[in-house]
Amino acid sequence: MPDEVAPLPIEELARAIEAEDQSAIRSIAEDLHYADLAHIYQEVDDEKHSMFLKTIGPEIAADMIVQLPDSMIEEALDHFKPAELKILFHELSDDDRVDVLQDVGDEARLRYLGLLGPEDEELTRSLLRYEEDTAGGRMTTRFGRLFANMTIKEAIDMLRREQENTETLSRIFVVNAKGQLIGRIRLRDLAFNTWDTPVRDIMKEVGPEQCILATADQEDAANLLLKYDLIVLPVVDEFGHLLGIITHDDAMEILQEESTEDMEKFAGIAGEPVEETYLQASVLTHFKRRFVWLFFLALLAIASGYVMMRFEGTLMKIFLLSLYLPMVVAAGGNTGGQASTMVIRAMSLGELVAGTASRVLWKEFRLGAILGCTLGCSIAALTIFILPAFRPQLPEGVTFFRFGLTVAIALAAQITTSTVIGALLPLGARAIRLDPAVVAAPAITTLVDVSGMVIYFTIAQAVLGL
Amino acid sequence: MPDEVAPLPIEELARAIEAEDQSAIRSIAEDLHYADLAHIYQEVDDEKHSMFLKTIGPEIAADMIVQLPDSMIEEALDHFKPAELKILFHELSDDDRVDVLQDVGDEARLRYLGLLGPEDEELTRSLLRYEEDTAGGRMTTRFGRLFANMTIKEAIDMLRREQENTETLSRIFVVNAKGQLIGRIRLRDLAFNTWDTPVRDIMKEVGPEQCILATADQEDAANLLLKYDLIVLPVVDEFGHLLGIITHDDAMEILQEESTEDMEKFAGIAGEPVEETYLQASVLTHFKRRFVWLFFLALLAIASGYVMMRFEGTLMKIFLLSLYLPMVVAAGGNTGGQASTMVIRAMSLGELVAGTASRVLWKEFRLGAILGCTLGCSIAALTIFILPAFRPQLPEGVTFFRFGLTVAIALAAQITTSTVIGALLPLGARAIRLDPAVVAAPAITTLVDVSGMVIYFTIAQAVLGL
Repeated sequence: MPDEVAPLPIEELARAIEAEDQSAIRSIAEDLHYADLAHIYQEVDDEKHSMFLKTIGPEIAADMIVQLPDSMIEEALDHFKPAELKILFHELSDDDRVDVLQDVGDEARLRYLGLLGPEDEELTRSLLRYEEDTAGGRMTTRFGRLFANMTIKEAIDMLRREQENTETLSRIFVVNAKGQLIGRIRLRDLAFNTWDTPVRDIMKEVGPEQCILATADQEDAANLLLKYDLIVLPVVDEFGHLLGIITHDDAMEILQEESTEDMEKFAGIAGEPVEETYLQASVLTHFKRRFVWLFFLALLAIASGYVMMRFEGTLMKIFLLSLYLPMVVAAGGNTGGQASTMVIRAMSLGELVAGTASRVLWKEFRLGAILGCTLGCSIAALTIFILPAFRPQLPEGVTFFRFGLTVAIALAAQITTSTVIGALLPLGARAIRLDPAVVAAPAITTLVDVSGMVIYFTIAQAVLGL
Repeated sequence: MPDEVAPLPIEELARAIEAEDQSAIRSIAEDLHYADLAHIYQEVDDEKHSMFLKTIGPEIAADMIVQLPDSMIEEALDHFKPAELKILFHELSDDDRVDVLQDVGDEARLRYLGLLGPEDEELTRSLLRYEEDTAGGRMTTRFGRLFANMTIKEAIDMLRREQENTETLSRIFVVNAKGQLIGRIRLRDLAFNTWDTPVRDIMKEVGPEQCILATADQEDAANLLLKYDLIVLPVVDEFGHLLGIITHDDAMEILQEESTEDMEKFAGIAGEPVEETYLQASVLTHFKRRFVWLFFLALLAIASGYVMMRFEGTLMKIFLLSLYLPMVVAAGGNTGGQASTMVIRAMSLGELVAGTASRVLWKEFRLGAILGCTLGCSIAALTIFILPAFRPQLPEGVTFFRFGLTVAIALAAQITTSTVIGALLPLGARAIRLDPAVVAAPAITTLVDVSGMVIYFTIAQAVLGL
C-alpha cells in the first residue's frame, strides 16, 4: 500500500467502535469507502458487530457486506430485522444481491428472497440459475439500455429516469425491438450531438466477438475485457438477447482470483482460495488445504525410496554416487516445474489454443535437451577437474572421467525427461478437461524424483559397468 | 477463448495478406480490433510486414504497434517514412507513445522525438522521466479536466472542444486554480443537471487515499483501482497537482503482468517475463531464463549429497532408512513451498502490512507443527502395522515401533522447520527490500533438502542408537 493512503479516518472509526460512540461511527462511516468499512468490520471484536451494523444502518451496510468473506455474510445479515433487510437488499445491485444469496444457507436464501419485491425476486431467481463462476453469475442487469429507433432526446430522458438503477453509464447498449444486442453508444455521444439525431445513427455496431454467452466461464469473460480494453462486456443468451453486463472491476477481481488459485495449486494447496485473508483464516483452515497434497505426495515419495533400496548394491559399490544423487533428482523437479509453469500460464493467458500441443512438446523437448546437456557438461567438468582434489574414494577401474560422464549423461536424460513430463502433464490434463494447474509443480517434482532415481542408477550401472 | 469469438474476419485478413490483396486488407483491417491486428501481424511471414503496414497506413498501425512485443516495435516503425511516423505518433495516446519510445533504441528515440510537434515533444519528454513500472510511467495525460469555478455549460463546451484528446470521460477530474486535484465528476452529472449549476456544487471530493503519487509502484496503483472499484485513478505529484490518470485497462494489464512475473519466479524462472507469447519466444530465450536458477540450485544440491555421504555409516547400518529418505526430504520442500507461496501471495495482495511478521511466523510455526505431527503419525502407523508384512531387514535390537518413531519425529521436525523457513525467507527478503518472490519455492526446496538430510540422519542416530 502506498504511503498516501491516510490511515487516519480508518483508525478513528476503529476507536469509535471500541468506545461504542455511535454518532462518531455514523459520521465517519458515511465518508469511508465500503472496502475500508469491510476491512474494519473484520478487525473489530465479534461482539461489536451488531452495534456497528445497526449504527451505520442497512443502506451503508449493504455495500460493505458484499465485500466480506463468504463465511461472514450470513452472520452479518442476521443482525438486521426483516424491514431493514428489505432496505439492504434493495440497496444492492442485482449481481451483488445474487452473490450474497449464493453465500448463505438454503433456508436463509428462501427467507431473504421472500423479502424482495415481486420484480426483484423474479430477477434474482433468474440470475441465481447461473453458476457462480460463469459470465451469467457475474453479470449485473443494471445498465443503460436504449432502443435503436429512439432519438437522443428520448434516450437522455430514459436514462435520466433510470439513472438510479444503472451501475455504469460508461457504455450504453442498444437493442432492437426483440431485445437483441445490436450496438453500443457512449454517453458523450449523447451529450455532444443534437437532440433529434436517432440513436441508430450514432451507435457503433457490436460484433459477436465483443460479447459473451451467459453460460461461458467467467475467466473467458475477464480475458475478453482485458484483450479488447473494454470497460463493460455485454452478456447475451444463445439468441443474442442482451441479458446483462460484466464490468471492468468484476474482471479485475476475476483475474486476481484466478491468479491466486493458480499459484496456490502450483504450490500443492488444495481447494478454492478462501475469502478470508491469510491472517484471518484459522490454522485449521490452512491445515486442511495443505495436508491433502502433502499426504499423497509423501506416499508417492516412498516410491523413490523403494527405487533407492532396490539399487542398494550399486550405491554400496560406489558410495560417491550419493554426492550427486540429490542434485540429479532435484534438477528434474526444477526443470519439470519450470516447464509446467510456463505451459500452464500460457494456457491461462489464452496463448495455447487447441492443436498447438505438438509444438509445445517439441519446444520443451529441445529446451530440456539443451538444459540437460549444458548442466551435464558443467557438472562433468567439475567432477573431472575439481573433485579429484578432495581425494574421494572410487573403486578400482573407475576413473573420474568415467564418473563425470555418468553424471553428465544422467543429468541430460533426467532433465530432458522431466521437462517433457512437465509440459505433457498439463497438456494431458486439459485434454481430459481437468484443470491443468492441478498437476503443477509439487506433483511433477515428486513424480520425476522417482524417474530420476531410476535413470541415475541405471546409467551408473551401464556406464561404470557395475 | 469462448466459442462465439468468430475467427472468420481474422482468417480472411490472414488470407488477404498472404495474397497481398491490398484493398481487401484495408477493408477488413478497418473493422478489426487492434488486438486482433497485432495477433495477425505476429503470425504472418516477416516479409509481409512492410506491405501490411503500408496498406493499413499509420493511423490504424499506431494502436496495433502498441500491442506488439517490445522487441518487434522498432522493426515495425522502421517500415514507415518520417511523414507517416509523424501521423502515427500523433495518433497514439501519450502513455502509449511513451511506452513505444521506451521500447526502442536510444538513437531511434531521439529521432522519433524530433518528429513530434514541440508541445507533444515536451510532454513526452516529461513523461519519459518516470520509470516504466511507476504510476507516472503508466499514466495518460489525455483526460477530462475542469476547473471548480466553471458552470456546467462552460464545462460541457470545454470537454466537447477537447474530446478528441481525451481517452476516457468516464471520470472527469476537477482542479483548483493552481492545478491541484480537488474533486471528480461523472459525465452523467453534467448531462443530467441544469446548465448554470457550478461544477463545484456537483463534484465529489477526492481524498488523498483515492489518488497516487507519480513515483509510486505501478502495482500499488493497480491494487488501489482494484480495492476501490475505480475506473480511473488520478496521479498527482507531491504537491497534489493532477498530472494524469491510470485507467482500469492499464490496471488489468499491470495485475496480469505481475501475476505472471510472480508465478515464473515461483518456478525458478529468472528475469522479467518476455513480451512474446510462449510459442513465439525462441528456445534460446527460454533457455536463458531457466538455466540461471537451475545451475545455482544444482550446485546447492551437491550440499545435500555431501550430507548424505557424511552419514554413509548410518545408512549402511540400516539401509531401510533410504526407504523414507526421499519422503522426509520432499515433505520439507512441499511444506516450505506451500508456506512461501501463501505468504508471498498475501504480501502482493497487500494483506501483510509491516508489523505482522511475528503473527505470520507464529501461524506458520503452529501449522508446521500440526502438519508435521499428523503426517509423522500417519507414516509411523504405516511403518508399525504394514511395513512388517514386507519383511524388510532391520538390524538386531531395532524394532519396527522404534523405526516408525524415528520417521515420525524426523518428519515432524523437518516439516516444522521447513514451514517456518518457507515463511521466513520471503519476510526476510522484503525486510531487506528484495522481491519476496525471488526466494520462492525452488530455492526453499533445495535449501530444506539439506536440512532434511541432516535432521533425518541425526534423529535416526539418536533414536536408534546407531
